[in-house]
Amino acid sequence: MRPRALIVLAILSSFFSSASAQSVPNSGAPVQTPAASKFHINLQRLQGTLEKLSEFGRNPEGGVTRLAYSETELPAREYVIGLMKQAGLEVRTDAAANIFGRRAGSENLPVLLFGSHIDSVLKGGNFDGDVGSLGAIEVINALNQGAVKTRHPLEVVIWMNEEGNHFGVGTMGSGIAAGLIGSEILERKDEQGLTVADWLRRYGQDPAHLTDARIARGALASYLELHIEQGPNLDEAKVPIGVVQGIVGLNRWRCVATGFANHAGTTPMDRRKDALAAASRDLLAVREVVRAEKGRQVGTVGYVKAEPGAVNVIPGRVEFPIELRDLDAAKIERMWDQVQQKLKQIDKEENVETRCTEFDNVTAARTDPSIQAAIREAAKSLGLATMDLPSGAVHDAQQMAKLAPFGMIFVPSRDGISHSPKEFTSWPDVANGAEVLYRSLLLVDAR
Amino acid sequence: MRPRALIVLAILSSFFSSASAQSVPNSGAPVQTPAASKFHINLQRLQGTLEKLSEFGRNPEGGVTRLAYSETELPAREYVIGLMKQAGLEVRTDAAANIFGRRAGSENLPVLLFGSHIDSVLKGGNFDGDVGSLGAIEVINALNQGAVKTRHPLEVVIWMNEEGNHFGVGTMGSGIAAGLIGSEILERKDEQGLTVADWLRRYGQDPAHLTDARIARGALASYLELHIEQGPNLDEAKVPIGVVQGIVGLNRWRCVATGFANHAGTTPMDRRKDALAAASRDLLAVREVVRAEKGRQVGTVGYVKAEPGAVNVIPGRVEFPIELRDLDAAKIERMWDQVQQKLKQIDKEENVETRCTEFDNVTAARTDPSIQAAIREAAKSLGLATMDLPSGAVHDAQQMAKLAPFGMIFVPSRDGISHSPKEFTSWPDVANGAEVLYRSLLLVDAR
Repeated sequence: MRPRALIVLAILSSFFSSASAQSVPNSGAPVQTPAASKFHINLQRLQGTLEKLSEFGRNPEGGVTRLAYSETELPAREYVIGLMKQAGLEVRTDAAANIFGRRAGSENLPVLLFGSHIDSVLKGGNFDGDVGSLGAIEVINALNQGAVKTRHPLEVVIWMNEEGNHFGVGTMGSGIAAGLIGSEILERKDEQGLTVADWLRRYGQDPAHLTDARIARGALASYLELHIEQGPNLDEAKVPIGVVQGIVGLNRWRCVATGFANHAGTTPMDRRKDALAAASRDLLAVREVVRAEKGRQVGTVGYVKAEPGAVNVIPGRVEFPIELRDLDAAKIERMWDQVQQKLKQIDKEENVETRCTEFDNVTAARTDPSIQAAIREAAKSLGLATMDLPSGAVHDAQQMAKLAPFGMIFVPSRDGISHSPKEFTSWPDVANGAEVLYRSLLLVDAR
Repeated sequence: MRPRALIVLAILSSFFSSASAQSVPNSGAPVQTPAASKFHINLQRLQGTLEKLSEFGRNPEGGVTRLAYSETELPAREYVIGLMKQAGLEVRTDAAANIFGRRAGSENLPVLLFGSHIDSVLKGGNFDGDVGSLGAIEVINALNQGAVKTRHPLEVVIWMNEEGNHFGVGTMGSGIAAGLIGSEILERKDEQGLTVADWLRRYGQDPAHLTDARIARGALASYLELHIEQGPNLDEAKVPIGVVQGIVGLNRWRCVATGFANHAGTTPMDRRKDALAAASRDLLAVREVVRAEKGRQVGTVGYVKAEPGAVNVIPGRVEFPIELRDLDAAKIERMWDQVQQKLKQIDKEENVETRCTEFDNVTAARTDPSIQAAIREAAKSLGLATMDLPSGAVHDAQQMAKLAPFGMIFVPSRDGISHSPKEFTSWPDVANGAEVLYRSLLLVDAR
């Protein structure tokens, strides 16, 4: 942290509170909620907008299904654009359908970008992405209310298709902005046969200009994102603020096991080429390999689609994805080698042929140490304990890592539940996160 | 076989051929195709109607998808009704949408019923059901051409929804006719939310009269069905005619494994309640139990549907069917007990809860020894070798077993393939089957 930041921090500290709580990584220290009067952000206003947003795509059982590129997401975007305009932001949508809202800075400096996403997974919750998106807009409102000027221009961003449940490619908008995804994505088709280009047109964009969405190197000073942890660490340790050390990388493969569809009553057990039995063994082999390594790596098979898929027919063709995640790319590679060996052996034993093709590859990204420090200091100024931890989930921040130093603030997820209607973060935790974002942003701006 | 049958057989034998080939069960004797002139049935005519029928619901890759109760099946039914009328049959459709075509007999006797079905599985072939259905109509044409009178009235039947790929209940039409399925079936819903009653109305029937479709005890003298084997036994042994000893019973359960849907990146491996991992182990446990027993029993899991079914979400709920088949009901029960024990253990280890509900239960049925003898003699009169074998597939004949003595004639399936576009029976084999049906029918009629 440079001198200017120290001065700002001193101002912030005296202005906000004289909380003495230390940053206690991995401690079980209780949540300390400072008096609301010390907060710049307005929780009531933020809660109101989050509750309104939760109506777009609400599931009967709670939570939302608000897939990117859907008729459900469109009005939610309009709602958020309205909020940005109300906050005085100059709103523009890029060719990848990312939404930006700009607030001028006092100096001719690169942009300080912060935000998140509002698309969800199938049967997702109300906090993943939403807290960081509306939290960012709330930060602008708080700055406006305090008539706070920043040196850097600020931009709030709502990234397009972070989850990737539609089209099977996550962090799509930020990937395009980072120049990591090119116009080849336009022809990708969904299950209805519609392409990304078709959807971009429906969203009012001209696909021919997709690469205009790329952000030039040097255009960004830093990227900041507030997000729910989506894991159990903060909730279990009762620590209100997570300082993200880095985001794990992930690789995804789509596998197809081909056996032979045949009559379930007349085909003897020893003559079968049962693609579903093979895929079941493949799934368990993935788990076995992942469990055999020490560390926090995870591996998942999210579905198994059998064809023809009738009760009285031996499945002849099965499709399933394999996903591996870790901070260490070499470990992912090592695990994948082992998985492939096991799949080959299972193919032999089951008289089936399995082919896997990689369709997603996101490299791990470390957060910027000085931004980590700013987040710790911001939390400290509020008397909030922090924990350093990696993010097991992919985030748009990972793509921004290609363009600028970045940092992430985590708030607790109850029981570590996410991508589920039961996903929950308490309002005090949401408020803490937004206020830490506000303070971190000013510290980073002052660097 | 009674004296009258012997006289008829003597007439048939002298009239047709003096072939000396013996009935050689389980032998590898080559197919002997008698000169077409000795055939009463007309293969060209039969082949023409089978080829025309194959156009209704044809798949791009060959074979058909002609599910019962579908807009695809309706015109196929109209086509077959037309053929029956052309053959001079008095056609009626019962309240279960089974189609009957009647030819009067010379004596006041119960009906000699024979036929099959024209519905298919998803991506099925062109022989399963079709050969027996159009073969039966061809037998009527042959009787007409020879001006042959039968003692019993003859009825050709086309059963409704034998495969059960729609509504998940097989041999539905024959089950209703046998009084084994009642009006409770009417409210059963398909994936589009349409009920059996809705479909019956679309097929021109009044669901309120469903039970009128029941066939009274004593109304049938016998039931005969020609069908492809759907297994590899006849094809491998190069025996053209199978004499079915009985049809295996089957039980089907629908299982739901409930775990907990959660984020695939942030949920540690040891905290997961992965319903798909549990279901994969369940599937393999079913296979292990079935393989452990001696005999011809089979067990199958035809699909596994995971929810929410996204690449980055641990599946929280999985649905899959289990099917067990054998001639011996006690063996099925024994295997199911073992499967349940294994599933319970897997539930414990996976922190998942699995519940299975039986939704289909068809008891095994033995064919009538005197009808078996008639089929053997009919084949012998043509110089065709026969093999006694059980049917691993369910057939409508199984339901008819409740009402009358029954028999089944099998013809070879190339490589034992069925329920697949690759399903194939050669035209000489189809002709042999239809001619054996013709001759068996006259022998049974003469009893």
